[in-house]
Amino acid sequence: MSAISDCVFCDIAAGRVPAQVVLEDAEVIAFLDARPVFKGHVLVAPRQHVATLPDLPAAAVGPFFLRIQRISAVMPTALGSQGTFVAANNVVSQSVPHLHFHVVPRTKGDGLRGFFWPRLRYASETEAAEYAERIRSALTAG
Amino acid sequence: MSAISDCVFCDIAAGRVPAQVVLEDAEVIAFLDARPVFKGHVLVAPRQHVATLPDLPAAAVGPFFLRIQRISAVMPTALGSQGTFVAANNVVSQSVPHLHFHVVPRTKGDGLRGFFWPRLRYASETEAAEYAERIRSALTAG
Repeated sequence: MSAISDCVFCDIAAGRVPAQVVLEDAEVIAFLDARPVFKGHVLVAPRQHVATLPDLPAAAVGPFFLRIQRISAVMPTALGSQGTFVAANNVVSQSVPHLHFHVVPRTKGDGLRGFFWPRLRYASETEAAEYAERIRSALTAG
Repeated sequence: MSAISDCVFCDIAAGRVPAQVVLEDAEVIAFLDARPVFKGHVLVAPRQHVATLPDLPAAAVGPFFLRIQRISAVMPTALGSQGTFVAANNVVSQSVPHLHFHVVPRTKGDGLRGFFWPRLRYASETEAAEYAERIRSALTAG
């Protein structure tokens, strides 16, 4: 067994650090978050080390999200839940710098407000249009 | 122009309801959330009506998430942000029952705690193993 690396998710993928694995194959490993929002909360990571979603090779995007979709689909059967919250933090608030999506079981009345974050308003439609244009420009420039 | 439907995201995709669109093609439409967590917060939806992530046809998963990846990748350039929060609610806390992912620009010190939800602990490794087994069983049964 090789030495512990500096990435805990690479270590889990290599079997060097224990985890409650729910799915693993050549491309993806999925395991329980040790500090779940709700019990059964799964983390899904590509086996290959990539830091963030933008770093995932294009050919790996479909396979990665098909696994996430599948885990989201079976949670109601597995856990008696009704829905899922599927989320990733990239760079900011990202606790482990190895891409991982959270798949969290949700049940109506579970006490969590859905989008639970403060929401802003644009000062005007003009301001909104300016933001949209900045994103459109960046998309067409790339 | 046909009549307004009962799905606002289908109406936006069809051009029947205005939105600040940042990307649209045959498969996906992406537009500003009118009540952003941070300005520039984008919603990405498949053009075809599907309710939740598990409902998205397998062939559409790759194309859908490649668009989400691309929008996440350009946000720092477009908005001067440093990272993104990429998330969807399925069923529970899902405000519009047409699949949509939020891509929210994040900046260090923006005042949001990352995973901002209460976190639990498993009573024991045995309890965690039981949850993992329920999910594994559902994955292999499907």
